Amino acid sequence: MRKILIIGAGKSTSSLVRYLDEKSSEHHLQITVADKNLEQAKKIAKGFAHIDVMALDIFNTSHRENAVKSADIVVSMLPARFHIEVAKDCVKFNKNMVTASYVSDDMQALDEAVKAKGLTFMNEIGVDPGIDHMSAMQVIDRIKAKGGKLIMFESFTGGLVAPECDDNLWNYKFTWNPRNVVLAGQGGAAKFIQEGKYKYIPYQRLFRRTEFLRVPEFGMFEGYANRNSLQYREIYGLQDIPTLYRGTLRRVGYSRAWNVFVQLGMTDDTYTMEGTEVMTYREFTNSFLPYSPTDSVELKLRHNLKIDQDDLVWNKLLELDLFNSEKVIGLRNATPAQALQKILEDKWTLKDEDKDMIVMYHKFGYELDGEEHQIDSTMVSVGENQTYTAMAKTVGLPVGMATLRILNGDITQTGVLRPITSDIYNSILKELEAYDIKFKEQHVPYLSYNIENVK
Amino acid sequence: MRKILIIGAGKSTSSLVRYLDEKSSEHHLQITVADKNLEQAKKIAKGFAHIDVMALDIFNTSHRENAVKSADIVVSMLPARFHIEVAKDCVKFNKNMVTASYVSDDMQALDEAVKAKGLTFMNEIGVDPGIDHMSAMQVIDRIKAKGGKLIMFESFTGGLVAPECDDNLWNYKFTWNPRNVVLAGQGGAAKFIQEGKYKYIPYQRLFRRTEFLRVPEFGMFEGYANRNSLQYREIYGLQDIPTLYRGTLRRVGYSRAWNVFVQLGMTDDTYTMEGTEVMTYREFTNSFLPYSPTDSVELKLRHNLKIDQDDLVWNKLLELDLFNSEKVIGLRNATPAQALQKILEDKWTLKDEDKDMIVMYHKFGYELDGEEHQIDSTMVSVGENQTYTAMAKTVGLPVGMATLRILNGDITQTGVLRPITSDIYNSILKELEAYDIKFKEQHVPYLSYNIENVK
Repeated sequence: MRKILIIGAGKSTSSLVRYLDEKSSEHHLQITVADKNLEQAKKIAKGFAHIDVMALDIFNTSHRENAVKSADIVVSMLPARFHIEVAKDCVKFNKNMVTASYVSDDMQALDEAVKAKGLTFMNEIGVDPGIDHMSAMQVIDRIKAKGGKLIMFESFTGGLVAPECDDNLWNYKFTWNPRNVVLAGQGGAAKFIQEGKYKYIPYQRLFRRTEFLRVPEFGMFEGYANRNSLQYREIYGLQDIPTLYRGTLRRVGYSRAWNVFVQLGMTDDTYTMEGTEVMTYREFTNSFLPYSPTDSVELKLRHNLKIDQDDLVWNKLLELDLFNSEKVIGLRNATPAQALQKILEDKWTLKDEDKDMIVMYHKFGYELDGEEHQIDSTMVSVGENQTYTAMAKTVGLPVGMATLRILNGDITQTGVLRPITSDIYNSILKELEAYDIKFKEQHVPYLSYNIENVK
Repeated sequence: MRKILIIGAGKSTSSLVRYLDEKSSEHHLQITVADKNLEQAKKIAKGFAHIDVMALDIFNTSHRENAVKSADIVVSMLPARFHIEVAKDCVKFNKNMVTASYVSDDMQALDEAVKAKGLTFMNEIGVDPGIDHMSAMQVIDRIKAKGGKLIMFESFTGGLVAPECDDNLWNYKFTWNPRNVVLAGQGGAAKFIQEGKYKYIPYQRLFRRTEFLRVPEFGMFEGYANRNSLQYREIYGLQDIPTLYRGTLRRVGYSRAWNVFVQLGMTDDTYTMEGTEVMTYREFTNSFLPYSPTDSVELKLRHNLKIDQDDLVWNKLLELDLFNSEKVIGLRNATPAQALQKILEDKWTLKDEDKDMIVMYHKFGYELDGEEHQIDSTMVSVGENQTYTAMAKTVGLPVGMATLRILNGDITQTGVLRPITSDIYNSILKELEAYDIKFKEQHVPYLSYNIENVK
């Protein structure tokens, strides 16, 4: 029996556990889910024959070391900032490791030590990062192998509510950490390159510089730019590509309405407001508007942000009860972002029967034999229910598949890795298709930014 | 002879030196100007009979200690972050000290030690902070002494170009550190209170929430909110005041045009751009606009920020050569803010014959005997030339006056102080009048925010 230790029984561990349990007999797996909260681990393991559970506080060094020592491979499903302690143990005790998180500087610094010991630390093997890397690199490598030259790469991912459960004006519900949604785009200008020109978008314009995308069978979406697209030139081996842009998908109209919060200052997480414990939603909104003895909060907001009388943005704000004078924030010393999150959670929390959806859209522009081409590649995954969400599946399944491949010796690269080489992505992408996580490609005319075909 | 050590021969040391030289015979002063750059100290001292100079590197501990030891009082005209080392020496060697800077946490922490030794460390005794404190507290204390209750305090200060030298569309030139002007308003939302309501303005709205003010004989100005007005409730003893707002003055129209830079992201100082050494002004501007194969940078900017064809904002941008395809930033790895500063310095640097101007505007609303009143108090100081600027005078003179009073035993309070008590401000404000730094008061109807008198 080979022992897999999974640390962290969070949301996306569910699909990982189900996958590994399913494979356990054939592959002789002994799987343990460890969490600080034993009940949480039990809940995740419930109903599976081959999953053990244990209580584990990762800040208890001896417990953590003992747990790592007794495993053959360690999967860290902890929040990203906690991986590093586990990673150091894995180096110390010669264990392979898997995470779905971005490679941190601390993690990258272990690369030499990991290689020296012949170990494999696979990271960024969830959905975004993860499936995005694999599906993009598969097409990029294929184009290159044919002798093509990449001239454009754009990539968008979004976690959304499934169409059949999409019943609010924002066409959005929280399918992941709400705090990250409220803070999205903060912490620095978005940077990318278009037709060889470096472009920078500050936070205050981010949600007003969107791009529309049509996904077959699922309709229109819009994308706003992620923070730093430029680093992907290096990672994807696209150093000279004139256009590279990564973004986040929402349904059309979301960003323009979200911009109201940005402009008012409601997404600020850097200071606490006075009196939020007893502050009504209306008072919260009024805090960001000039004082007036004569005008309503409604008219002040419309006037300040120049919202026309017949603009649907207005109905989106009303739907959130932003002007309600009875509902109370009820949080002590909240930042604007925390107060806004509270308001949004009233309306954007998934109902028991709601399903989520992951949408991914890549555009590859390339030159081959003197002609310009474009491939658009899309993937949509809809959740089964609130346990096996699309998010849990698209994160947990590739993590499980990578774990199994490392354990079986099918992945032989050593070091701190990302799934960007064909030995890794081909086999995992193929297996993901069996779980209905498939990309559809369409060949379209390459128009670059000449989208109206203006000459 | 009493020895005054002035450390730092920067811009506002000129008026300080002239003032103390003028007083040296009568008050038996021996004055030394110390600077890392001896030539700079010599330049400041030139033409004055009673001013010595010395080279002093404040990072050389023994030199610094020796200099402090041999003085009777130390005036630090260094950049604010360097005061603390000098202050610690002053505690060690029992010397009084004067600075024009805000009391830092480090400085405040010395309060007990300073008091224990019976020393006086006078801070915030320049113009803003300084003359603003004194002139405001004099009126506030007078209103309180009459039995009045303060219900509103608003205060604005601006460093501008004198009307006779005001020859650009922005009605603005750099009269102080350009970098601070470019970064103004960053680092947190503006916080204040209006009619008992806490108000917060994020950076992205700061320059669109201005207030107009008319200064007799000088015309219209506008004010935008400073970062944190709320702390002045404590400092000024106005804990329960329903309206307290501090701001920065500019000529009308400046803020709306400046907002173009804010919205585009040109004032961002958190990242460096690619290729700024060879980047033209036009390319710089284009970096913040979407790529288009068919549209000009001009039309993209107009469209993105919805600038009408006949809006004067446009001419302000043209005046700065923002679309010039020949002028080059010429700075290696510049942040957007650094590049913008370079562009502005081309046009906003004072010419040799230009004069600057300091404008201050206080509004005091109060209740007395059941009636509401308002006093507006204004001060305008115009510079003599590029040496004795209004900024140098309004900073250097109160610093010199406080120094003399401490030396003569006229200021007897001990500890880390601000000039907010009548024993300090009355005498200094009176002496400032001799230098034409005077406040004019007018009694106006108290309208609060009911400015159109709507009932």
